Amino acid sequence: LSADEVTLDFDRGVRIGLPEAIFAAGKSTAQLEHILALGEARGQAMLITRLEADRFAVLAEAWRTRLDYCAVSRTAILGDPPSPIGSSIVALVAAGSSDLPVLREAERTLRHQGEVPTVFADVGVAGLWRITSRLEQLRGFPIVVAIAGMDAALPTVLGGLIGASIIAVPTSVGYGVAAGGHAALNAILASCAPGIVVTNIDNGYGGACAALRIARVIRASQNRPDRSAAA
Amino acid sequence: LSADEVTLDFDRGVRIGLPEAIFAAGKSTAQLEHILALGEARGQAMLITRLEADRFAVLAEAWRTRLDYCAVSRTAILGDPPSPIGSSIVALVAAGSSDLPVLREAERTLRHQGEVPTVFADVGVAGLWRITSRLEQLRGFPIVVAIAGMDAALPTVLGGLIGASIIAVPTSVGYGVAAGGHAALNAILASCAPGIVVTNIDNGYGGACAALRIARVIRASQNRPDRSAAA
Amino acid sequence: LSADEVTLDFDRGVRIGLPEAIFAAGKSTAQLEHILALGEARGQAMLITRLEADRFAVLAEAWRTRLDYCAVSRTAILGDPPSPIGSSIVALVAAGSSDLPVLREAERTLRHQGEVPTVFADVGVAGLWRITSRLEQLRGFPIVVAIAGMDAALPTVLGGLIGASIIAVPTSVGYGVAAGGHAALNAILASCAPGIVVTNIDNGYGGACAALRIARVIRASQNRPDRSAAA
Amino acid sequence: LSADEVTLDFDRGVRIGLPEAIFAAGKSTAQLEHILALGEARGQAMLITRLEADRFAVLAEAWRTRLDYCAVSRTAILGDPPSPIGSSIVALVAAGSSDLPVLREAERTLRHQGEVPTVFADVGVAGLWRITSRLEQLRGFPIVVAIAGMDAALPTVLGGLIGASIIAVPTSVGYGVAAGGHAALNAILASCAPGIVVTNIDNGYGGACAALRIARVIRASQNRPDRSAAA
Amino acid sequence: LSADEVTLDFDRGVRIGLPEAIFAAGKSTAQLEHILALGEARGQAMLITRLEADRFAVLAEAWRTRLDYCAVSRTAILGDPPSPIGSSIVALVAAGSSDLPVLREAERTLRHQGEVPTVFADVGVAGLWRITSRLEQLRGFPIVVAIAGMDAALPTVLGGLIGASIIAVPTSVGYGVAAGGHAALNAILASCAPGIVVTNIDNGYGGACAALRIARVIRASQNRPDRSAAA
Amino acid sequence: LSADEVTLDFDRGVRIGLPEAIFAAGKSTAQLEHILALGEARGQAMLITRLEADRFAVLAEAWRTRLDYCAVSRTAILGDPPSPIGSSIVALVAAGSSDLPVLREAERTLRHQGEVPTVFADVGVAGLWRITSRLEQLRGFPIVVAIAGMDAALPTVLGGLIGASIIAVPTSVGYGVAAGGHAALNAILASCAPGIVVTNIDNGYGGACAALRIARVIRASQNRPDRSAAA
Amino acid sequence: LSADEVTLDFDRGVRIGLPEAIFAAGKSTAQLEHILALGEARGQAMLITRLEADRFAVLAEAWRTRLDYCAVSRTAILGDPPSPIGSSIVALVAAGSSDLPVLREAERTLRHQGEVPTVFADVGVAGLWRITSRLEQLRGFPIVVAIAGMDAALPTVLGGLIGASIIAVPTSVGYGVAAGGHAALNAILASCAPGIVVTNIDNGYGGACAALRIARVIRASQNRPDRSAAA
Amino acid sequence: LSADEVTLDFDRGVRIGLPEAIFAAGKSTAQLEHILALGEARGQAMLITRLEADRFAVLAEAWRTRLDYCAVSRTAILGDPPSPIGSSIVALVAAGSSDLPVLREAERTLRHQGEVPTVFADVGVAGLWRITSRLEQLRGFPIVVAIAGMDAALPTVLGGLIGASIIAVPTSVGYGVAAGGHAALNAILASCAPGIVVTNIDNGYGGACAALRIARVIRASQNRPDRSAAA
Repeated sequence: LSADEVTLDFDRGVRIGLPEAIFAAGKSTAQLEHILALGEARGQAMLITRLEADRFAVLAEAWRTRLDYCAVSRTAILGDPPSPIGSSIVALVAAGSSDLPVLREAERTLRHQGEVPTVFADVGVAGLWRITSRLEQLRGFPIVVAIAGMDAALPTVLGGLIGASIIAVPTSVGYGVAAGGHAALNAILASCAPGIVVTNIDNGYGGACAALRIARVIRASQNRPDRSAAA
Repeated sequence: LSADEVTLDFDRGVRIGLPEAIFAAGKSTAQLEHILALGEARGQAMLITRLEADRFAVLAEAWRTRLDYCAVSRTAILGDPPSPIGSSIVALVAAGSSDLPVLREAERTLRHQGEVPTVFADVGVAGLWRITSRLEQLRGFPIVVAIAGMDAALPTVLGGLIGASIIAVPTSVGYGVAAGGHAALNAILASCAPGIVVTNIDNGYGGACAALRIARVIRASQNRPDRSAAA
Repeated sequence: LSADEVTLDFDRGVRIGLPEAIFAAGKSTAQLEHILALGEARGQAMLITRLEADRFAVLAEAWRTRLDYCAVSRTAILGDPPSPIGSSIVALVAAGSSDLPVLREAERTLRHQGEVPTVFADVGVAGLWRITSRLEQLRGFPIVVAIAGMDAALPTVLGGLIGASIIAVPTSVGYGVAAGGHAALNAILASCAPGIVVTNIDNGYGGACAALRIARVIRASQNRPDRSAAA
Repeated sequence: LSADEVTLDFDRGVRIGLPEAIFAAGKSTAQLEHILALGEARGQAMLITRLEADRFAVLAEAWRTRLDYCAVSRTAILGDPPSPIGSSIVALVAAGSSDLPVLREAERTLRHQGEVPTVFADVGVAGLWRITSRLEQLRGFPIVVAIAGMDAALPTVLGGLIGASIIAVPTSVGYGVAAGGHAALNAILASCAPGIVVTNIDNGYGGACAALRIARVIRASQNRPDRSAAA
Repeated sequence: LSADEVTLDFDRGVRIGLPEAIFAAGKSTAQLEHILALGEARGQAMLITRLEADRFAVLAEAWRTRLDYCAVSRTAILGDPPSPIGSSIVALVAAGSSDLPVLREAERTLRHQGEVPTVFADVGVAGLWRITSRLEQLRGFPIVVAIAGMDAALPTVLGGLIGASIIAVPTSVGYGVAAGGHAALNAILASCAPGIVVTNIDNGYGGACAALRIARVIRASQNRPDRSAAA
Repeated sequence: LSADEVTLDFDRGVRIGLPEAIFAAGKSTAQLEHILALGEARGQAMLITRLEADRFAVLAEAWRTRLDYCAVSRTAILGDPPSPIGSSIVALVAAGSSDLPVLREAERTLRHQGEVPTVFADVGVAGLWRITSRLEQLRGFPIVVAIAGMDAALPTVLGGLIGASIIAVPTSVGYGVAAGGHAALNAILASCAPGIVVTNIDNGYGGACAALRIARVIRASQNRPDRSAAA
Repeated sequence: LSADEVTLDFDRGVRIGLPEAIFAAGKSTAQLEHILALGEARGQAMLITRLEADRFAVLAEAWRTRLDYCAVSRTAILGDPPSPIGSSIVALVAAGSSDLPVLREAERTLRHQGEVPTVFADVGVAGLWRITSRLEQLRGFPIVVAIAGMDAALPTVLGGLIGASIIAVPTSVGYGVAAGGHAALNAILASCAPGIVVTNIDNGYGGACAALRIARVIRASQNRPDRSAAA
Repeated sequence: LSADEVTLDFDRGVRIGLPEAIFAAGKSTAQLEHILALGEARGQAMLITRLEADRFAVLAEAWRTRLDYCAVSRTAILGDPPSPIGSSIVALVAAGSSDLPVLREAERTLRHQGEVPTVFADVGVAGLWRITSRLEQLRGFPIVVAIAGMDAALPTVLGGLIGASIIAVPTSVGYGVAAGGHAALNAILASCAPGIVVTNIDNGYGGACAALRIARVIRASQNRPDRSAAA
């Protein structure tokens, strides 16, 4: 490994309030271990995404024992989890049980930043009662991350029912025209419900970061007046 | 016009119970008038689709006065309308008021065959009450043609609520990723609600024909036992 | 497994006459076994689709012995099969012998609901006699599910020859421009034969459900007059 | 015009805090005038989007004189503008001067709801100083709507520099591979900067609605503690 | 017009037996007239393709009177037509009457080279009898150019019925998923009938040239033994 | 294996002069062995395509010993090879050595029908001398099958140099925008050289069948006058 | 026009040696005139691209008389042309005469910067002699901009024959699969000739700028040793 | 292996100054060893690209010991490396550490030709300081190869900051809409920074060859006046 291969952006946390996550896909084991060493040397907590179980298995044992690894979400966390910031203001809503890996990636990213979400799983609109029966509870959350694959009708239905900020994360669940999540992505972008925003397909990490950008403003606003709300 | 340019399939009605419709796009005025003359000579009612208003305007006056033309649906009908067959068994459901041209094409195709549909317009799921408040009424129809553009969440929501045969017609309403109706089409094909079927984009005529194929079996079944139901 | 990961829609059968099928792709073994236990606890027959042989092989033996598994169609069924409802009113027609997995998924879904189909396999139009020689027999069925990959010319040819309801299921058979079934799908959607409807690629389950939606109306109509035909 | 063609969702404002906007594309003049009359009868302010100048020109004069029309953004507003809610908390940032129509649609949507944005136009990253020189000012806004076409590098650069909520609106500016905004859309979705969210191409209205969903929570939070922040 | 803008390939006829055709789209009127003058100066017959009627109308009158123009096929021919070479060995078969412009482009290209085709128009497979009733006649032609849009099932059905060389020309007839002829193109390329070859969409000129490449070998072979058959 | 799964088209050879080839992809081992048995029972030679080495390896030994298998082209042949028909009239030209599998599939298909081609391999235009130095030799063939991947410039260059019938077979060689052969396919279809025709990507079998359709006419023509040339 | 709509990057010339060009598409007449006034006030020469003739025609007469407008290339230049820098080191090579608008855009951009190119027009490879006969002349240029549409085989053939820097500009000439230049673009990117680089479709301006980036290094190198060559 | 399968273009080096590289994908082990033997027999250094580690492992040991193999870049080199030509004039700039395989392929291709590049790795614009802090150093290089995946904003930002020749190489890093590098490719092609050129996705070899084409002119120019600069 050349010393010049990695240039970590350690002050990102200071700059934008979100720490750099390490995208494991395409990185060699040597690169990952080098990055972990750099992080540990600075005493910085780190989040690794897209770390497949077989990639995790070949890390040095010393790293494996220190990492909090989750095979479902393919994430690993270095360092102690922060204390929860306050009561839950982010709802994670997933349409089907096959969307769980993305939901867990979002959940772990949020918890990694001290933001504990409330989970509503397997509430897709093909059984509409699953979402309408929990609508009152959902209306209590200012931020909703809606995770759905296939036709992704869930964010649209939610968008017409609640006024919260809705961040939709399309998933690659499905086959044929589902096209690895493109049908879901396009359906959400073309939604007839107003003001729904989207991340890349399967990007639970991105959905969580978008929620964090809003959550920090809300938490800051609760103590401060007007315009000074910015992070 | 060469005599050999047109080979009409006049016995289609006998063969499959659906008359040949004339697809006007790409045909010259001379071809259209020649086809009308052939139809009239046989005393056969004819349905012309995709006939834009400016194309209709340049037909010979003799034809214009004899045709029942509708600019919204771009259809023209030659010959007297048939008597309605019986009480309405087809519901036409459209998500938005911009879907009206497709809805009207389907409606006129059905009426051209004596099948009078019941219309539910502008009932998209961004205002969910619009569909749920009429659910009991909708449950009375064995055949539902669901017309929707943009994200086309309507057929999915319907598919989880009613057991009727649902024929979805995606429309080209929308822009950007709506992509001329492809997002709607793919969302319906990838629907998590079971057994929804689809036609080409904006194909109100096709949706009506699919409904007619089923309707004829139902009407035949009402008087006959089991297997002999086929048209 | 968290208790909140799965929200089964058990009353779908009551609501729309089609039971929830379990889409195995993307679900963990733990999720699948949890779902089976929920189903068994309610005494409900269950259909699992897209369950690859290597996924089936790692289920607990207790489940494997109780499931009726078919590797060709990748389906597993829990519970006793229902009695056939009556004489066969659904024809399953497949263009090539490579389309068999999709045909079998459709067949098993129909049988799971007591609807026994009649199968016409390997009758693609490149050898036109294969379909024309069986045309009279085919004309006896009010519902035809036409399964075809590559150029999918079969549904178009059928559509011009018979008046039955035709549900086309494109398959991913082929390579290059066949593009995982997209060429077949688009060819059917653009068909010059009127009133053919389509499901997602390789969706034998969906084709069967669409047939069931119609079949139930037909069977109901055989005993009842007019409008009350709806499910 | 049939009475049943339009089913307005008037209580959307009560339900989700965002009034229904009228999407003019695909609606007939008769439909638009009917909708305006319905709105006026209820004394409700209305926003019409995608109303091209030649479509506006053929509305009845009575409507034209009462509408506040803007040809650049293709929007028309019925009713008096609301008073601004407070100091500006939304920044509208556009990469090029060709993005102006989308920027103006967003601006007018926000103002229609009393939320007055601050505009930063023509600050694309090909001249990086244009954005870096205004960075301190930008850091004062908790919500940034970033509008960009072509390669849409602006949201990525912003995303690494500020912690605000960033809603990116790709535009159709460009040609060739820009593909009507798809290159911009995909670049933003694939951004290496964390937590950027996206709307449909050219959807200034949607970007504004997404900002409104957040803004209302912020304004509500400024007066209330924790969890009760939801709209 | 700069003298260096045009470099005509006059000896193409000598080299490959096919004269250069002038593709009018994208060329200015000045360029077209310059090219015509160059051709006339050499006494060479010329074929211009894709010359829209409004482009033809603005050519100098001197050129208009000397050109044999056909608005349907958008072709213009300079110079006297050659004598027919012999009895017809090329069949032009078109699926629908909307395919006529492409059929005429192919027909005029063939005639321009002395090869007189036999035309079978409007014989698409949705009315299968139209093709089967003329099958014996078709079997007399060693070269068949099959022109079809939408789902383009015609070449596949022909390919299973006759042993001639089949050159398929997909057309842009259709809408929605027909996608300007891409569905037709892909269906033909993915055909389950063996040995069908394809040209670009709407390329009647190309289909005719492919037929000419074969026709010349056949005509040469009729007088010569074996291997020396090449042009 | 159900008896009804396979409907072989044995008289295809009589009908169109090309025997049915068995497309192995998607067929089970049981299906393949059943088909071989049917063929052997009729004493008919059979060609199997797309039979991967690991699929071949699991056939019953009795079949493996009787099949002439070629791993490079993934083809297996049952039955004795026919005698060569005459001197070679088909040239197989491939651009790169990575195109060899497709070239061999075409070569074996031709030989299976007694048509022995002449091979020109690795003569792509990036080293133009490779093709120009062999041009005189190439001009001796009335039929040229040109096989090329990546940008597939070879058929275009050939098309401007020789008058033979040129059947281009795009290959999936390449990466990125080569897109599994789509760039090659589109480049050939859009070729500025006239009258080049194309098959599906990697379809060496199809290219050979197209050549056979022409070759049979040529061989027939050498002994017969005019119009009676058809197969 | 708001004062804040335009933020010109006047010091781009100082920074990177290439002045900002004004992309007229999507800008209003008011914006264009405002930009021209800003440029003129600074005495800066300006290049406007993508200015259609009907857009130019509605500029104020004062501007029209001062602009050097070219309808073929859709470019307008404000200010005096610079003196040519030296002998020509850039060759502009175009495959067909329909590529002229792109060639002229490149030519005018180069001349606007004092770099006078040498033009080789209409030398596509379907008539290979057109390029080989001028090869010696072409070898004298260190920079070649190769402009081609349809299958764009020209850059590949050039790339195998000359060692110069080759910048390929695909054009939108063609139809069907040419797909607005995407087939040409992909063919060049997938070229088997090494080291060819590409710009966006129809981007003659971009091809010229890429040539200028190289030309300036060459001209600087001619007077300076090694590494100090950078602009 | 047939003797006729390979036609190496050994004089490419003489002709265009770039030796033929062997693209290993799609070639058999026998072909690769045959090519190596041909190269060694001529005493010619050879570069093999896209040689996966498992493909390298099955080469004959005699070849493995003589090849300089690099698993990260999947390249193998036969023959001694040349001496470096002079001080470094090519900068290789990569956005992320996952782009390293492409960077190494480019680096090894350059070194294979004696051109030693300077590497700037992991300097993507999400942490803008990484590029701006090294800007002065970067300005010293006349040729910059910019390697980036995902949204590929790096080349655009560089393009507005430096006047060097910028060759962008998009990489397949990313998922979902990143689409194997297509989002990166399109973003660069649509860049608002002028004169950036692009290679195929992941084509480090091509980026290096493009740099070599320019580098040779620069090195030649340093000793010679004007126009005679061409290679």
